[in-house]
Amino acid sequence: MDKKYVVGIDIGGQSAKIGMIDRNAVISSRDRLDTTVYGPDDSGRFLNDLCNLIAKVTEAVGLDAIKGIGIGAPNGNYYDGCITDAANLPWAKGKSVNIREFISERLGLEVTLTNDANAAALGEMIYGNAKGMKNFIEITLGTGVGSGIVIDGKLVYGHDGFAGELGHTNVIREGGRKCGCGKTGCLETIASSGGVCTTAREMGMQVNSSKEVYEAALKGDATAKRVFEYTGRILGEKFADFVEFSAPEAIILFGGVANAGVMLLDPVRKAMDANLINIWKGKVKVIHSGLPESDAAILGAGALAW
Amino acid sequence: MDKKYVVGIDIGGQSAKIGMIDRNAVISSRDRLDTTVYGPDDSGRFLNDLCNLIAKVTEAVGLDAIKGIGIGAPNGNYYDGCITDAANLPWAKGKSVNIREFISERLGLEVTLTNDANAAALGEMIYGNAKGMKNFIEITLGTGVGSGIVIDGKLVYGHDGFAGELGHTNVIREGGRKCGCGKTGCLETIASSGGVCTTAREMGMQVNSSKEVYEAALKGDATAKRVFEYTGRILGEKFADFVEFSAPEAIILFGGVANAGVMLLDPVRKAMDANLINIWKGKVKVIHSGLPESDAAILGAGALAW
Repeated sequence: MDKKYVVGIDIGGQSAKIGMIDRNAVISSRDRLDTTVYGPDDSGRFLNDLCNLIAKVTEAVGLDAIKGIGIGAPNGNYYDGCITDAANLPWAKGKSVNIREFISERLGLEVTLTNDANAAALGEMIYGNAKGMKNFIEITLGTGVGSGIVIDGKLVYGHDGFAGELGHTNVIREGGRKCGCGKTGCLETIASSGGVCTTAREMGMQVNSSKEVYEAALKGDATAKRVFEYTGRILGEKFADFVEFSAPEAIILFGGVANAGVMLLDPVRKAMDANLINIWKGKVKVIHSGLPESDAAILGAGALAW
Repeated sequence: MDKKYVVGIDIGGQSAKIGMIDRNAVISSRDRLDTTVYGPDDSGRFLNDLCNLIAKVTEAVGLDAIKGIGIGAPNGNYYDGCITDAANLPWAKGKSVNIREFISERLGLEVTLTNDANAAALGEMIYGNAKGMKNFIEITLGTGVGSGIVIDGKLVYGHDGFAGELGHTNVIREGGRKCGCGKTGCLETIASSGGVCTTAREMGMQVNSSKEVYEAALKGDATAKRVFEYTGRILGEKFADFVEFSAPEAIILFGGVANAGVMLLDPVRKAMDANLINIWKGKVKVIHSGLPESDAAILGAGALAW
């Protein structure tokens, strides 16, 4: 039988999004799982629920029509198929969960795993604003801050498969905020949705989400604008470091916080250029993802399976 | 006629080292040029003197026996053959010098150019302590701080050929020292030989070179030891960022400052591990180059020409 579909899965701190994708990159069926309800002892229950949802999403065509499953997840390792010590997934924190083996054995399908941000980068390269680019960095600004690094047209996995943890590079050396990874002062503590919210509160705003900060800024709230100026400056300063590492053509921002658009992009570009050596000043693009947020990672994960 | 030799050239802020290399990686003839005597208007004179010295080094066999010339130089660009805005080379600062075209036209030989640190990394991979490694970062600690990044067995050039300027990533965000590149607070301002010397003076030592600091530390001078502890801590903190980028198997230190050995390596390892997320703690090697300093970059540059 002809395998006409793949399943793409994007696992995040808030939800796991599942889509059945055809050869034209159309998501013909989709569903999602709330991942906040799984605690430290619930990895088995999560994997079980995920398998049931995969079966449901593919119900109309049956598993026989599925070529494979591609999964993007925080700390998802392409080499060993495990999610290892993912700060934003309580059921995979401080241990390794072999998601590839579990799903593969349960459903009898080939499963490919990678970092969630790598999956987004792959989606961006095939369907989004990185089409035709051979060197770029995808930065995901959501519950966490992730990164997918593409060099010479290929995702960077490194020696152990964990390359691209740019959210855990340091931006505040002394007295930084505590990060979910156990360190302090990580980029993630500033540029994640929670980081933006914390900055807003420290500046005196009464908010519960980065979206509220964004909405206040849109209405002209001066403090909210300052929150994005601060976030953008810290990001831009750090992006200069990244450029000095791999000399990308562009850095592409994806995820909830990136929806602030120019309010965030302008200070990012300004701070990045101010911190670059002359050969790169004004030459490296910082742009917004070209894919709808909910689909980039699903499509990217699915691309792994083709 | 059989081309039995290549010429490898390592251009640095103090000297240009030239070697004629046979197929067994034996340097059968060598010479050097003092590069400190060439000012902003002397790029033509430097290239002319370099060509004359290449002719002299290959005199015994003649240019017909030479397969090609490989050059490693600060800001040397593999793609366009130019040295562009090299902070430590006055004759190539604020402009582009097409060294590949000049030498190639003058001597009628194929010329390949790369970053000096990339050349060292190539030498390390073929002849040194990175044999068999597919993912490592070579950090050169000399007049400047350079880097050659190897991912999946290949040197990283990036979109424009300038990838691997890790010496100009930021380590002191506020009030850092002025760097030759025009920025402040670059890693190079701390970990170059001049940076080590400046730190020693700031701590009250009367020294004129990093070598004197090293010799004092060897004799047990407590301040000199503190200089290397400080330098090592800053390096190690920054290495954690690099690991979080490309997940290398090892970071390899090369160049004058690296000769401080364990006095430098111990604080580097300690600070790096303290700043890594759990998946890498204790797993990434920091080791000393396996090649004599004078030969690694020459052999690496020569390898480009084979």
